[in-house]
Amino acid sequence: MPWLGGIRSRVLVMELNKLIEKELIAGIRKDFGIESPEAVELGIGDDAAVIKSGEKKLVLTKDLLIEDVHFVFSSHPPALLGRKSLSINLSDIAAMGCTPKYALLGLGLPVNVKVEWVQEYFSGFRETALEYNTTLIGGDVTQADKVVISISLIGEGEMYIRRGGAKPGDLLFVSGTLGDSAQGLILSKQGIGLGEGLNTDFLLRAFFDPVPQVSLGEKLAELKLASALIDISDGLSVDLKHICEESNSGAEIELNRIPISPELRSVREDSVDLALQGGEDYQLLFAVPPEKEKQVSNLFSKFKITKIGRIISGRDIFINGKNGTRKLLEIKGYQHFT
Amino acid sequence: MPWLGGIRSRVLVMELNKLIEKELIAGIRKDFGIESPEAVELGIGDDAAVIKSGEKKLVLTKDLLIEDVHFVFSSHPPALLGRKSLSINLSDIAAMGCTPKYALLGLGLPVNVKVEWVQEYFSGFRETALEYNTTLIGGDVTQADKVVISISLIGEGEMYIRRGGAKPGDLLFVSGTLGDSAQGLILSKQGIGLGEGLNTDFLLRAFFDPVPQVSLGEKLAELKLASALIDISDGLSVDLKHICEESNSGAEIELNRIPISPELRSVREDSVDLALQGGEDYQLLFAVPPEKEKQVSNLFSKFKITKIGRIISGRDIFINGKNGTRKLLEIKGYQHFT
Repeated sequence: MPWLGGIRSRVLVMELNKLIEKELIAGIRKDFGIESPEAVELGIGDDAAVIKSGEKKLVLTKDLLIEDVHFVFSSHPPALLGRKSLSINLSDIAAMGCTPKYALLGLGLPVNVKVEWVQEYFSGFRETALEYNTTLIGGDVTQADKVVISISLIGEGEMYIRRGGAKPGDLLFVSGTLGDSAQGLILSKQGIGLGEGLNTDFLLRAFFDPVPQVSLGEKLAELKLASALIDISDGLSVDLKHICEESNSGAEIELNRIPISPELRSVREDSVDLALQGGEDYQLLFAVPPEKEKQVSNLFSKFKITKIGRIISGRDIFINGKNGTRKLLEIKGYQHFT
Repeated sequence: MPWLGGIRSRVLVMELNKLIEKELIAGIRKDFGIESPEAVELGIGDDAAVIKSGEKKLVLTKDLLIEDVHFVFSSHPPALLGRKSLSINLSDIAAMGCTPKYALLGLGLPVNVKVEWVQEYFSGFRETALEYNTTLIGGDVTQADKVVISISLIGEGEMYIRRGGAKPGDLLFVSGTLGDSAQGLILSKQGIGLGEGLNTDFLLRAFFDPVPQVSLGEKLAELKLASALIDISDGLSVDLKHICEESNSGAEIELNRIPISPELRSVREDSVDLALQGGEDYQLLFAVPPEKEKQVSNLFSKFKITKIGRIISGRDIFINGKNGTRKLLEIKGYQHFT
């Protein structure tokens, strides 16, 4: 649920863009924030909103997926689109350390869409819903010029982990490998489809059917390991900046520690740019107080997790390269369809 | 939240339409229903879904509004679109007899949309949110070819009123007047705008800025007056049929009791067709056991409510006209933009 931030709004024209990134978001936060009832624990600005409901906390998120903005109809297999549309919302719940529960699905369909496409979409959606014990409780289907998918997801948790909360000295970890999805998109735009090779299949899958890190998020919350948590939807650099901004801190990361898959290396010589700025990885980025590092390493047997750097004081974000080089990290996300 | 039913899906092409209305909805209900956890009290098929959360019940709904399907960008004043987009979701919560609490807003915007348009949209949205004590807790803004508005609304209630629950002998009531919104749409398509006359303003307002019947819905639930409740989004005939189907019953309504505004009569000689099949009235239609009629009439001082007929056994829906004529009610909704 990237509120007016990140790649999705940055592809808007500059005038609107500027408003959205600065005034509008501030205005909305201010306008809508003042009348927030006490039950709203966390409103606009994180991966999901949190409301109190009795003893429990409910986390709520919403993402729009729009044809030709977030996916190309002709290249994205419908069952995988069904999976992805739910998975990116599951990832927002994972980024709070909470457990997904209920989904609402809004679907806008062109008049010429085939029945089979809709059936396959739903079969993929249902598969993912079952995998993550999430129940579709309702929605709305309507006509549209292009396919529009709007999913709202409701999760629960005893507690939740925000983006802001990291302190200087905290260690930075990331799950999985980075840049695969961005390379998958590049391959897809080159006309390469599934079934043409093991490496390309892996990369295409990362884009068509990313895996939300729900179990890891739950574990981080259960063990109270993370001081800050976000999912990487806009790319490592942008999402690390989100953590730093919300935590009033800076960071430094080690270039040679950025996890890059052999599959990505196999098709791209210089793959670190995609790993830093690629977007749509849906891996988790989190900060851990140093005294809890041991506990995180206990998770290594179950989850792929890599230590990539640390939180520092100040507001700068550095990347440390070979031979002791150190420079400011370029904060940018990949522009998908522009 | 008209799940794959009503006007919104009926404007889809026939093949998809048939699937959506029959197989797909049944398939979704079946496929997704079997794994519903106990906490889901009411899933797909009513105005909103209901989940238990501690002592409370949460009601959840979602509606999509798409440019050129549900509104025309050039004629719908943006502040009123902001109001309406929230109001039609508030109406779904009202149709459960519950109290709206939290909103998530997804907005797809074309690159050429003006900043002023967005500001006015939000000012209208905020106005309505304040009027109904509803808090915007998050959302997503992204690029789109045409304006796409997706709102999810979360409400609360001690109890809720379903569509199914009416029994033969129950009396049928409707709030407000019917057909105004459909005539407002007709006027708008004729190029008539706000400020050109008192009567046309009233009718245009009914379309541009319908008033959700939240207080009435809450009162009906609080006093346990209604055995079945729905909001009229697809037109009286279609929504009455929804009540009858879900209640396994028929109905008869009295032609001369259908509430029609003087404003509608002033611009249209034969206005009963719009009142029966017009759609987008967002008034409440509800059934009341006869022994509770007196209690409903106690509400007449605060709410405009009209008794229009009764629930009968069987599955037919009749309309009784002048001189004792009686015929089957034609069940159809108005096709907005086709």
